[in-house]
Amino acid sequence: MAMRRAASVIGARALSSTRVSCPSLLSRDLHASPGSKKIVGVFYKANEYAAMNPNFLGCAENALGIREWLESQGHQYIVTDDKDGPDCELDKHIPDLHVLISTPFHPAYVTAERIKRAKNLQLLLTAGIGSDHVDLKAAAEAGLTVAEVTGSNTVSVAEDELMRILILVRNFVPGHHQVINGEWNVAAIAHRAYDLEGKTVGTVGAGRIGRLLLQRLKPFNCNLLYHDRLKMDPELEKEIGAKFEEDVDKMLPKCDIVVINMPLTEKTKGMFNKERIAKLKKGVLIVNNARGAIMDTQAIVDACSSGHIAGYSGDVWNPQPAPKDHPWRYMPNHAMTPHTSGTTIDAQLRYAAGTKDMLERYFKGEEFPAQNYIVKEGQLASQYR
Amino acid sequence: MAMRRAASVIGARALSSTRVSCPSLLSRDLHASPGSKKIVGVFYKANEYAAMNPNFLGCAENALGIREWLESQGHQYIVTDDKDGPDCELDKHIPDLHVLISTPFHPAYVTAERIKRAKNLQLLLTAGIGSDHVDLKAAAEAGLTVAEVTGSNTVSVAEDELMRILILVRNFVPGHHQVINGEWNVAAIAHRAYDLEGKTVGTVGAGRIGRLLLQRLKPFNCNLLYHDRLKMDPELEKEIGAKFEEDVDKMLPKCDIVVINMPLTEKTKGMFNKERIAKLKKGVLIVNNARGAIMDTQAIVDACSSGHIAGYSGDVWNPQPAPKDHPWRYMPNHAMTPHTSGTTIDAQLRYAAGTKDMLERYFKGEEFPAQNYIVKEGQLASQYR
Repeated sequence: MAMRRAASVIGARALSSTRVSCPSLLSRDLHASPGSKKIVGVFYKANEYAAMNPNFLGCAENALGIREWLESQGHQYIVTDDKDGPDCELDKHIPDLHVLISTPFHPAYVTAERIKRAKNLQLLLTAGIGSDHVDLKAAAEAGLTVAEVTGSNTVSVAEDELMRILILVRNFVPGHHQVINGEWNVAAIAHRAYDLEGKTVGTVGAGRIGRLLLQRLKPFNCNLLYHDRLKMDPELEKEIGAKFEEDVDKMLPKCDIVVINMPLTEKTKGMFNKERIAKLKKGVLIVNNARGAIMDTQAIVDACSSGHIAGYSGDVWNPQPAPKDHPWRYMPNHAMTPHTSGTTIDAQLRYAAGTKDMLERYFKGEEFPAQNYIVKEGQLASQYR
Repeated sequence: MAMRRAASVIGARALSSTRVSCPSLLSRDLHASPGSKKIVGVFYKANEYAAMNPNFLGCAENALGIREWLESQGHQYIVTDDKDGPDCELDKHIPDLHVLISTPFHPAYVTAERIKRAKNLQLLLTAGIGSDHVDLKAAAEAGLTVAEVTGSNTVSVAEDELMRILILVRNFVPGHHQVINGEWNVAAIAHRAYDLEGKTVGTVGAGRIGRLLLQRLKPFNCNLLYHDRLKMDPELEKEIGAKFEEDVDKMLPKCDIVVINMPLTEKTKGMFNKERIAKLKKGVLIVNNARGAIMDTQAIVDACSSGHIAGYSGDVWNPQPAPKDHPWRYMPNHAMTPHTSGTTIDAQLRYAAGTKDMLERYFKGEEFPAQNYIVKEGQLASQYR
């Protein structure tokens, strides 16, 4: 029953569309099967860690905690971490899945080719934030809906960014290595450890995460700058105490610390290349929890090696998982981790609940919360345009 | 000239004292030589790092940047890092030094025995904050003045504490180790990584550093508690949004995160022993940038090993430098560094200037800023009583 309504509402929505650039929008939705759905979830495997915390919902074993609920309603729920390569588990299910759930932490790369093969696919859900693992243009052309749990881990990522700023400013990592290596050399740390107070911090992008970061930075008495497509509401700007910079290339050379807070798009891909990095202050610190591909990988390695960049920290890589020989693992003065900032236990509880909510609405044929849509009726969300 | 004035004013101050419990106060000051002073500074050696930053003033080589100034006025300035053991350099100068400058980062332990041998000693200066490396009772009885550069690195330490809170809450260290070891296992990090938001953070001690920490924690939307001898001014308390806890043992079991912000005194020494730790929440995180000896070393190791303490981070040890076999180097879930939080470049500039200012006042026979005195005219500052 719920299924039939879902199919009919989606059909109605598609029929009401007057866009002619997406001819497949109509046909794709009309082909949706009205009954039981095949839902595939792609998550990282937790192995022995899966049972260690009842709220650890984001792993393959615990699969957002929605298996019982889905199966009790007659749906099929396939979960795997095997997402890449010609014979991977995910590819076996591409031809007949209706819904694909993935996360930025272990992304299922949804290419145009996979979309073409996925004849029953209707809905791509990101449990978390950031849907750049999906070829959004191809998804829009195929009439798919792409949605994420907007807001579910913004606080988690913003907190993590502030941690990374401090880790770099304080030169924490070499200090910790001294401890575990049986050494004690205060000078080797202190000669390049600073206070955050009084430094200029600029965020490239001041959307949800960037704003939360700026709010948390306020009591540190820094000089706060932000670049974004839009200037903040003057009241919010005053409350946060950050100055708007319309031209990112005028802001960047002023910054002691640069934080990246924008999505990966065609425009931002490789934005921090050799030329732009050369214009940054010598000794700049960079924090990037946004996406690895915003950086030119080798340009970052070179600038960390020369000392032009004095520290680089982030949890995002290109590709993910980062291969063993990824050069960011071995460059000097980095404080990298695997992609974890948005997958705290608190965030997992929120994005699992948000994913379940969207599935429920999908089955009932109801709209999702407006801010969750990344691709809807052939249109990309503004931040991805 | 300046010297004679210094000696006479100190003599006058001593003579005006009516305390009878310190008979040596008088004699010690009258024995001060009126001319050139012998000043000994004990700092960590920087070796190849000394020349890497012109503002790196806190090391033995750069010696607070006051050598030229002192020597141009006819004073002798001996600087060493060799401070322990029977034949150490420091001990050679104990019999005839007038002023001893040290730091908490590489402390010259000024025992009662050393004070007894230091017949010319008048002034013990701490370049930084925390004078517990001095036997303060013996110093008071000998009529010495002990002073530190109060406020010089409070911001530095508070920032560092917030970094450590986030490092533990986020489980940063194992994530970074994965990166440098060629691994990628999100689950091993995420199953015990949390948001700071919503957690209960309690500071034991809310003096200068504790308050700066609470102010910086405010936008994180935590439940903030503090224990101190004194309740804050209601307006400040409201601004910070922290709740006063009169009984530390009633506060501690409520905390997800405990931060130590009090000086090491006879009362606080070993305060976190097996019994007190057992009363903390299972899974508590502890940050201690105050002093290592506030903890029972082995009790911390045991509780980290059992998992009762889920994370311990700090930069203070007992003793310092921490020997190679100090068990905190090897316990699970720690994020320790050598003692560096208060010796950022910014802090070094401030405490070098503050030390120079006190020497200048000492030579001129002027009072120090009131908040700098730790021992004055036989009396200990209130926080050390």
